[in-house]
Amino acid sequence: MLKRRATILGATGSVGQTTLTLIDAANKAGDAEIEVVAVTANSKVEELAEAAIACRAEFAAIANPHAGEELAARLVGTGIKSGAGPKAILDAAAMDADWVMAAIVGAAGIEPLLVAAERGADIAFANKECLVCAGDAVLEAMERGGGKLLPVDSEHNAIFQVFDFERPHRIRKLILTASGGPFRDRDPSTLTKITPAEAVKHPNWSMGAKISVDSATMMNKGLERIEAAYIFPVDKDIIDIVVHPQSVIHSMVDYVDGSVLAQLGTPDMTIPVASALAWPDRINTPAEQLDLTKVGHMDFYPADEVRFPALRLARESLDEGGLATCVLNAANEVAVAAFLKGHLPFLDIAGVTEHCLEKVRSNNAGSDLSEILATDKLARDHAWQRVEALAGRA
Amino acid sequence: MLKRRATILGATGSVGQTTLTLIDAANKAGDAEIEVVAVTANSKVEELAEAAIACRAEFAAIANPHAGEELAARLVGTGIKSGAGPKAILDAAAMDADWVMAAIVGAAGIEPLLVAAERGADIAFANKECLVCAGDAVLEAMERGGGKLLPVDSEHNAIFQVFDFERPHRIRKLILTASGGPFRDRDPSTLTKITPAEAVKHPNWSMGAKISVDSATMMNKGLERIEAAYIFPVDKDIIDIVVHPQSVIHSMVDYVDGSVLAQLGTPDMTIPVASALAWPDRINTPAEQLDLTKVGHMDFYPADEVRFPALRLARESLDEGGLATCVLNAANEVAVAAFLKGHLPFLDIAGVTEHCLEKVRSNNAGSDLSEILATDKLARDHAWQRVEALAGRA
Repeated sequence: MLKRRATILGATGSVGQTTLTLIDAANKAGDAEIEVVAVTANSKVEELAEAAIACRAEFAAIANPHAGEELAARLVGTGIKSGAGPKAILDAAAMDADWVMAAIVGAAGIEPLLVAAERGADIAFANKECLVCAGDAVLEAMERGGGKLLPVDSEHNAIFQVFDFERPHRIRKLILTASGGPFRDRDPSTLTKITPAEAVKHPNWSMGAKISVDSATMMNKGLERIEAAYIFPVDKDIIDIVVHPQSVIHSMVDYVDGSVLAQLGTPDMTIPVASALAWPDRINTPAEQLDLTKVGHMDFYPADEVRFPALRLARESLDEGGLATCVLNAANEVAVAAFLKGHLPFLDIAGVTEHCLEKVRSNNAGSDLSEILATDKLARDHAWQRVEALAGRA
Repeated sequence: MLKRRATILGATGSVGQTTLTLIDAANKAGDAEIEVVAVTANSKVEELAEAAIACRAEFAAIANPHAGEELAARLVGTGIKSGAGPKAILDAAAMDADWVMAAIVGAAGIEPLLVAAERGADIAFANKECLVCAGDAVLEAMERGGGKLLPVDSEHNAIFQVFDFERPHRIRKLILTASGGPFRDRDPSTLTKITPAEAVKHPNWSMGAKISVDSATMMNKGLERIEAAYIFPVDKDIIDIVVHPQSVIHSMVDYVDGSVLAQLGTPDMTIPVASALAWPDRINTPAEQLDLTKVGHMDFYPADEVRFPALRLARESLDEGGLATCVLNAANEVAVAAFLKGHLPFLDIAGVTEHCLEKVRSNNAGSDLSEILATDKLARDHAWQRVEALAGRA
């Protein structure tokens, strides 16, 4: 029987809601006994209170310090304690859950994650930025705590499911699959005219605007390469990317005997969330069952670093080490935001990022949180300046 | 460090030779310390003596009782003991190897396998007939001995690599992939005219004539369904077959959370042999590395039991239980032999098999070896009579 005391950091987002739904279903089916310790949110008070009541959490924390009274009022009579402000989120992370879903978006997720990691919780990892910006800090905290890192991104979860952690030296390659985004086949000369509306249409997954643009530039896959290098104990040079437009094979591990192990599935985030929740056991999900005779066929192409310079930038920043990946992530976020507002042409997203990688020093103080946050801010400032300079030029 | 005391039953065949080559390479690379206890062969004295000397075996046994003197003469001065006749093969199986490759072709492989299984060796399984004819007997012997069954067939080895033996109740489906053979797309009305030369051309694997015909009729996949039902502790009704002409995905396991785990690779028997040899570790092989960008694409189709009645016969005989699968195997062997000699049209292979399944009683004395061998003989006699009757009619 699967038993857990679980905390969900970022409980009102898509991954957080999926986690709570799976916990409820597994408990009701008698497949698991999962108690919810704490739930947190950034600003959605009503949804947070509802979630806390539905899962009978012990504690609910809201990051917005002005929302504390409303949250407390909504929880009157439920016996659920509450708190507000960034400190309350850290309090939630510090409670004695043995499993923590780290699903807070962006840099705000780093500190709560470090708190949970230090005290030894298993961490389900649904936040790219934490590893890309603060990978060394996160790994050091996980190592001290002794908990297990359970990746929720579908690609890393796929690798996790077939990765032999007892024999990583028998692994020849990690192969990340990439859909290739909506512009894989498009004439490169037309890419200057891409509109935000075109860029956010992802062929397989339903996602937010920022990540959809990252998929269109393939920066998403570049960031995943960086994540993979932190999550899995292998040399970063053995990580490969293969374009697979149908996104049925979610990623692969190539072993020295010639066996390539893969995880396949329908494009439904419920599957990796359930995998991370139940590991090493499994629980039922409502995800549609994969039927390869309906899929019909799968295609595979090499990943093209010329067409998609974000792939090259991500690889180079990983090679450079230090805080270069933090600069990459920050500059890309700014450039994507500028593109989505119509202030930057599609093809200049990578240009802004490359400019920042050249200009912003990223020395190797990788595990010092204040240094990381300072570098993140510096890169963002540079990126905005660059966007403005390019707009002025245009 | 991988340590084994290994015996190879069927050392001069393709699988046996591959095993010896891998053992030698792993020892020389310093990746393993594998001692060879015994090697056996049916009649190839010279090859057996060479193999025994090369791997410094303790004992060599030849099944042909008239070949004992020649074998002994070839081993003079080497310190390698030898024996001849069926009893000598059993002596080889009884020696204290902790790992036994069971690669003797046909029903002759059953008794040596049972001897090795009873005494608790891990058994690498490269003989379909043993499980199809004598599955209950083999499983009971394995259970008493306590060794592990390590499948070498590429499909079952693929499933083995991603099968969670601690949680078989979390498995929803086993999915065997099938190339579909050379006649997958051919107009059914032309199948009557298939010649032996056309039938033995397999699209992906280089194989013997009998197994190539089984691939063309898809009986091979039907036999694999039966094997899978014995090897894996799941209900036989959850075994599915999907046609995948490129044979890159070797088979899959579908779990309740929606994760489908698969093993992929180039079509090289070295890979599953190495997997069975090194399990749970892995060793290097000279197999070509899989490059999905060179494979380009994969297709998937439903398996068609109307076009390929062998699939239906195999499924029905498994459902019937008892010795029906033994009758199926024996009748099919006779029918294929008759086809290869030009005595039976291609489409009548399944007809002869179905006739025998109807006529030969197969009561449920599944683990009594003499009963199994008697049923096997009875089915073969019936099949020959049916072939002659059809030839007389034509």
